Amino acid sequence: MQVQISPRGSLVQLSQLEVERLQESAASDLHQLYRNCSLAVLASGIHSDDSTQLFQMFHDFRIRILRRERGIKLELNNPPIQAFVDGEIIRGIQEHLFAVLRDILYIGDKLDSLKHINLTNSYHITNVVFETLRNAKALPLLPEPNMIVCWGGHSINRTEFQYTREVGYELGLRDLNICTGCGPGAMEGPMKGAAIAHAKQRINHGRFVGLTEPSIIAAEPPNQIVNELIILPDIEKRLEAFVRLGHGIIIFPGGVGTMEELLYLIGIKLNRDNHDHPLPLILTGPKESADYFEEIDRFIATTLGEEAQQHYRIIIDDPVEVAQHLKRQMEVIKQYRRDVGDSYSYNWSLKIEPEFQLPFQPDHDAMANLKLVPQINNALLAADLRRAFSGIVAGNVKPEGITQIRQRGPFQLQGDPRFMKKMDKLLAAFVSQGRMKLDGTYKPCYEIRNARHSSAH
Amino acid sequence: MQVQISPRGSLVQLSQLEVERLQESAASDLHQLYRNCSLAVLASGIHSDDSTQLFQMFHDFRIRILRRERGIKLELNNPPIQAFVDGEIIRGIQEHLFAVLRDILYIGDKLDSLKHINLTNSYHITNVVFETLRNAKALPLLPEPNMIVCWGGHSINRTEFQYTREVGYELGLRDLNICTGCGPGAMEGPMKGAAIAHAKQRINHGRFVGLTEPSIIAAEPPNQIVNELIILPDIEKRLEAFVRLGHGIIIFPGGVGTMEELLYLIGIKLNRDNHDHPLPLILTGPKESADYFEEIDRFIATTLGEEAQQHYRIIIDDPVEVAQHLKRQMEVIKQYRRDVGDSYSYNWSLKIEPEFQLPFQPDHDAMANLKLVPQINNALLAADLRRAFSGIVAGNVKPEGITQIRQRGPFQLQGDPRFMKKMDKLLAAFVSQGRMKLDGTYKPCYEIRNARHSSAH
Amino acid sequence: MQVQISPRGSLVQLSQLEVERLQESAASDLHQLYRNCSLAVLASGIHSDDSTQLFQMFHDFRIRILRRERGIKLELNNPPIQAFVDGEIIRGIQEHLFAVLRDILYIGDKLDSLKHINLTNSYHITNVVFETLRNAKALPLLPEPNMIVCWGGHSINRTEFQYTREVGYELGLRDLNICTGCGPGAMEGPMKGAAIAHAKQRINHGRFVGLTEPSIIAAEPPNQIVNELIILPDIEKRLEAFVRLGHGIIIFPGGVGTMEELLYLIGIKLNRDNHDHPLPLILTGPKESADYFEEIDRFIATTLGEEAQQHYRIIIDDPVEVAQHLKRQMEVIKQYRRDVGDSYSYNWSLKIEPEFQLPFQPDHDAMANLKLVPQINNALLAADLRRAFSGIVAGNVKPEGITQIRQRGPFQLQGDPRFMKKMDKLLAAFVSQGRMKLDGTYKPCYEIRNARHSSAH
Amino acid sequence: MQVQISPRGSLVQLSQLEVERLQESAASDLHQLYRNCSLAVLASGIHSDDSTQLFQMFHDFRIRILRRERGIKLELNNPPIQAFVDGEIIRGIQEHLFAVLRDILYIGDKLDSLKHINLTNSYHITNVVFETLRNAKALPLLPEPNMIVCWGGHSINRTEFQYTREVGYELGLRDLNICTGCGPGAMEGPMKGAAIAHAKQRINHGRFVGLTEPSIIAAEPPNQIVNELIILPDIEKRLEAFVRLGHGIIIFPGGVGTMEELLYLIGIKLNRDNHDHPLPLILTGPKESADYFEEIDRFIATTLGEEAQQHYRIIIDDPVEVAQHLKRQMEVIKQYRRDVGDSYSYNWSLKIEPEFQLPFQPDHDAMANLKLVPQINNALLAADLRRAFSGIVAGNVKPEGITQIRQRGPFQLQGDPRFMKKMDKLLAAFVSQGRMKLDGTYKPCYEIRNARHSSAH
Repeated sequence: MQVQISPRGSLVQLSQLEVERLQESAASDLHQLYRNCSLAVLASGIHSDDSTQLFQMFHDFRIRILRRERGIKLELNNPPIQAFVDGEIIRGIQEHLFAVLRDILYIGDKLDSLKHINLTNSYHITNVVFETLRNAKALPLLPEPNMIVCWGGHSINRTEFQYTREVGYELGLRDLNICTGCGPGAMEGPMKGAAIAHAKQRINHGRFVGLTEPSIIAAEPPNQIVNELIILPDIEKRLEAFVRLGHGIIIFPGGVGTMEELLYLIGIKLNRDNHDHPLPLILTGPKESADYFEEIDRFIATTLGEEAQQHYRIIIDDPVEVAQHLKRQMEVIKQYRRDVGDSYSYNWSLKIEPEFQLPFQPDHDAMANLKLVPQINNALLAADLRRAFSGIVAGNVKPEGITQIRQRGPFQLQGDPRFMKKMDKLLAAFVSQGRMKLDGTYKPCYEIRNARHSSAH
Repeated sequence: MQVQISPRGSLVQLSQLEVERLQESAASDLHQLYRNCSLAVLASGIHSDDSTQLFQMFHDFRIRILRRERGIKLELNNPPIQAFVDGEIIRGIQEHLFAVLRDILYIGDKLDSLKHINLTNSYHITNVVFETLRNAKALPLLPEPNMIVCWGGHSINRTEFQYTREVGYELGLRDLNICTGCGPGAMEGPMKGAAIAHAKQRINHGRFVGLTEPSIIAAEPPNQIVNELIILPDIEKRLEAFVRLGHGIIIFPGGVGTMEELLYLIGIKLNRDNHDHPLPLILTGPKESADYFEEIDRFIATTLGEEAQQHYRIIIDDPVEVAQHLKRQMEVIKQYRRDVGDSYSYNWSLKIEPEFQLPFQPDHDAMANLKLVPQINNALLAADLRRAFSGIVAGNVKPEGITQIRQRGPFQLQGDPRFMKKMDKLLAAFVSQGRMKLDGTYKPCYEIRNARHSSAH
Repeated sequence: MQVQISPRGSLVQLSQLEVERLQESAASDLHQLYRNCSLAVLASGIHSDDSTQLFQMFHDFRIRILRRERGIKLELNNPPIQAFVDGEIIRGIQEHLFAVLRDILYIGDKLDSLKHINLTNSYHITNVVFETLRNAKALPLLPEPNMIVCWGGHSINRTEFQYTREVGYELGLRDLNICTGCGPGAMEGPMKGAAIAHAKQRINHGRFVGLTEPSIIAAEPPNQIVNELIILPDIEKRLEAFVRLGHGIIIFPGGVGTMEELLYLIGIKLNRDNHDHPLPLILTGPKESADYFEEIDRFIATTLGEEAQQHYRIIIDDPVEVAQHLKRQMEVIKQYRRDVGDSYSYNWSLKIEPEFQLPFQPDHDAMANLKLVPQINNALLAADLRRAFSGIVAGNVKPEGITQIRQRGPFQLQGDPRFMKKMDKLLAAFVSQGRMKLDGTYKPCYEIRNARHSSAH
Repeated sequence: MQVQISPRGSLVQLSQLEVERLQESAASDLHQLYRNCSLAVLASGIHSDDSTQLFQMFHDFRIRILRRERGIKLELNNPPIQAFVDGEIIRGIQEHLFAVLRDILYIGDKLDSLKHINLTNSYHITNVVFETLRNAKALPLLPEPNMIVCWGGHSINRTEFQYTREVGYELGLRDLNICTGCGPGAMEGPMKGAAIAHAKQRINHGRFVGLTEPSIIAAEPPNQIVNELIILPDIEKRLEAFVRLGHGIIIFPGGVGTMEELLYLIGIKLNRDNHDHPLPLILTGPKESADYFEEIDRFIATTLGEEAQQHYRIIIDDPVEVAQHLKRQMEVIKQYRRDVGDSYSYNWSLKIEPEFQLPFQPDHDAMANLKLVPQINNALLAADLRRAFSGIVAGNVKPEGITQIRQRGPFQLQGDPRFMKKMDKLLAAFVSQGRMKLDGTYKPCYEIRNARHSSAH
């Protein structure tokens, strides 16, 4: 099967140099990255979080850029048929294909070649995240704050999914937009709910922003409601994009990725510079998920203490209250941004320290060396806890992580026994609740050392 | 509670004469009609099909038109709070309020006062339906046929509702729009499904047309996804609007109203003049509804015979096939309209006889006199069968019908024993399946005379 | 030459009844009217104000309405080639053709057939003007008053034309829109100037409203900058449309038509009910036109007195001051409309008496009987003076008037000798300055009786 | 006077790094460039081509970028009041201010810092021109070729100006867009004419592209009709932008800049690789300019020979023929681009040799060393002739050129006596016809050495 796809949404004119850089060639890493991300968005209709299997299944998929009189076209060979309806590509996927083109070019061409940019400089990183989002036209002039980030698992149960949908519906009724990690589960439910509410509120151009990264896009293909897909180079820049773009954050039930996100945000909120900075964080789920959040709350209490607990609010089984609370906070944020002269569309004034910005490469040594022990500055502990969960995410679903686990066995995590025990328990709960993977038996990619009882899942 | 509502969507400037005509006054029937229809659209979020109860509950609701510098405003006293989110009216309902204003004015002012129009002339009626739709801007230039009418009950079970949603989704994926009677149940499900599909297909201006009439709007308040609400003066003009606006028709499970619609369309299709006229009709539901359609099919076979059965196709549990079949038929219709020089947006060339156009006033005499016996021209039998079901709808939910039943007891239906038996059985099934009313026990508003076994529900 | 024209701008769907009414047939006055108005807009590129000549030149022009799948089309036979560029119709003219269709239908069908409307009732007339404008979508929601009516001659000299253009430019720079009688000369210049200013101000949807009437459209074909063409049934409704639509009025040099407009407005302003009503009126021209306005000013002083002179301001050779003055007045009007609760887009609160509304049929008797003598109520004198000039306009360019003059000789005007002398002088000046007709020698259609010196032009 | 200006059209969000780079500081060349270009667009309403005088007049003009909640704002101190109407900035100028910001950032930040770009590589230069245009959103998807480049002098007489306007009008009537060097005179007339034609043709989004460069923008401030202002880094990239963006080229009467443009294009057309490449070139003017074009034609014949003459067509006093000829050629270009698979919006396939791309720095040595003698490859002679005229333009109006002339006296030009004589004559004609400067006496910035008669103007 071979089809040609016309541009939609993004970049429609490429320079000859750009076309050359993305062309298929044995030597081109950039082409490989481009091809894989394109495959991932085409796989959006397939129920799977196993990228290895996906790449095998579509090993003969190819993509080429053609230059035509009225711009460019993409030529696809052997794409997943789920991307098509009666032979026509779904236009949401068509847009995503060109968003991939835009962002891979930006990452590969611009970012890589800017002489003035120093990617180990905190200030420069924040500017690069800004420019990536602006290049994707994700920083429009906003009349007021209205973007709610929804974090949560890709693998959640039916009740939880329905709940995320209801929360999305209540948010949408209040003219709020949704930003997620753009995969299935808790990343899709709020968008579906909000889409119906937007229809009732006659919002024709509601924003459904999906932020992803090359190493996870294939495991969590963007759902098609996403109408602004943006690929950030790595998880740290993606997390920064979330918190600078969003005006409020909801955490639904999820697994290790969700814990990574929670710890990242608590770590930033613990920073004294952010003491008065309004960025509401709500943990919420149906009443069946009350225990889940209690468990997490206890984990935070044990590791980061009471102060950390002040930085979020848990709301059980009340979508209207979640939405009303956030809607009210939008006014507070509006006033704050005006007061400090900050933009509505990009939160420049939130302070993010380098330990939350510099890419963490989760290999066995790095994981073993994390300082999971009590520290004077709890933000630093949060940073290391974040890295621990980040590593497990990689071991579970990211290609590089999976390869390492296959070669050298599970990551070894060690630290304060009390922390380790809590962590062990939390992870065990995620496993037993099926939050690690969509299908099949989960084989842990980690071993916890200092927990009093050995971990045996 | 008193609120002022700004215009949205329709008429924003009224003449002084128009304002006067709609103003509250003891003597004004038009104001009463206007007030009740407005209340009905405000009640959209309330789960009820009992208009009497609704009017009692909101006996102190008042509406006034104010003239302001930038057009008009509506002042509401004591409206249903379900129409508001945190004190702001839902914009879909806001649009509906002004659609009511537009159509009531049109019915009350224009229609009533046109010297040239003869409402007993078939040709004039067809022109009036056209003008009403055009006045509501429901006749845009269409690039191609794409409007699917979905008929079915307001009171259906969860499985059926989910099925209507899936069919709507598959239609929406194929760029098709939805037109329904605009209430809940089978009138809402397809729209919700299509809204999600339209989001995926980046259709920002999908059409969700709702056709209603003053005497049913309160029993079946328009769902808020409807983005083109139109009030036709009576059921006959409403049915004509459906078939001239729609390019394909789906019948989901429903009750007596759905039967009325089915018989109306079969009656028209039996007309020799419409022999080659393409207007696809599909009866569809989940596998659990297979029996339901078999029952209906047998009723049609018994009363109208095999020829009538040729005019529809039953598809069980296959939303994709339903959508693909209709999508394919759009090409046939396109070609046909081109060949005969007919419009894509209004089906002028379909022949509709006066017996399907002239308003039927269902009182006890009229119902008793229906000729429910074998006839040479089956279209005439279909017309009378349609009237029989129409009468039962009125007795169930329309204010005038309910009043009559209260005063004079159930309608008496009589006719060919074989027909009556089938009809009795069909109606009994509707009752037992809960298709007559949303809540409470159903007390039949009819009695079937010639059925061998007396009807005792 | 035969071409088919697709719809643009207005009505694109007609009912079968409407098509029938407009179809060519020996008996149809409405078709004749429709055909002539259509010819007039097609003649927009021809430099002529002689409608008789136009109709002779294009005696074989024919127009037919065709119904097509995607709406209607017009079929033209032997249209003026000036309406086409390389065989394609100019899109401005294309829009005008469909505006004609819309308004002739409205006049011929709706207006004529409304039972509730009494066209001798002042209140009803005002409502009919409103509805005609609304039907033409000329009453949008305005954020603020911004419509300047420019009156003035169709036959003006190059310096005057350039001046009208400069005034239009300064108005356009200040976000003001233009409304004129839609012919050439002073009706076109301000629009051309404003179009350039709008381009500089990035106003993509500036409004250039042209108000005309069936009996003058052929003598003053709409210029193509007009992007909202509206045909009112007669000069009185057209004048009412001007003053209810406009927020400020400029009078440039012109001839008898311009005098009619000036007297109409002064007559209304003299009404005590309009004492505080803000509706700025400016008489302006280049310095070469100073004498012209002095002459008019003296005429007003002599006939209507000093009070009347308070109602306008003469500004010579200062386009910036004209525009600034009007712009400032927009704020006053805004405040006034808010205070009295009147619309920004239609001036309901201006009082217009029946003597300015009821159609004046200028025949020899009517002209001879005008009371051109001092009166207690100067507004009544203004009304009759207005009628006198209106009659001369008819005798000059309107088909009915021309026919009467041809049959019975010039109209006879009589009245107070002092008035008649001034009037004679004024008219003589118009003649000598070439303001009566575009080309050729002007033969007066009137004789002034009581002027001490007989009028001999 | 201090005002704050909100964004319009272009870049509305800047990164902190970008704001820093453009901030005022003694050391910042980029800020100086940014400030001067901003001043130039603000000076658009001032009739002057003397940039030195402009900079002196507004020596206390300052510009600062402020970051605000809803994006950025510009703060201007002591701007030219001609940019304002009643205290409000003209929105065309407002857009231009932000176009300057966008392009200066692009030139100063991106272009300067791209590691992969080699600005001495012909292929890379073409890509950079492409990217600059794309960054300015000047490369939309075109349905068909429609962009006409109009070259000609900024200092032309009234008859010539009126003629350029008429040509623009005829182009606009045919749905063609205009691209010029964006100053006054022949760069403004065609846009004004086309704007009126676009209004008649209901083209709301006609394109008026102005291409300029930092060293000339102050001498030829962009006229406000320009709705896409783009600053290219130097004259060579600007010329390349013209020929890759345009689909047809018109040369109106002009001075040395116009000769530079003509020679540039002839030089490219003489390239064998462009033999079949359709790029129509028309020299046109009113009948009073016939001699002017004859003179130029003879100069070309003498220097570049008959072959060069084949590459243009002279049309005298016939705006309709000019427009019709170009309109017809659009079809040829459309077919050609399809055949070779080239874009409609950027002419990749036209071959431009490095001698036309590499920046020429006109100093006394470079000017003296030009090879203005017969050559085997006439394209090379055209390149050097182009440079000669380019140098005179610099000496006339560009700050660097003026400084050099002031310090070292006129440039010395030498070469083949026959050529030099013709050149001398041509330049003398430009001087006597007032084509060199808008006001005052012109003092030549060049001396021609080898002309038999010494040049004494």
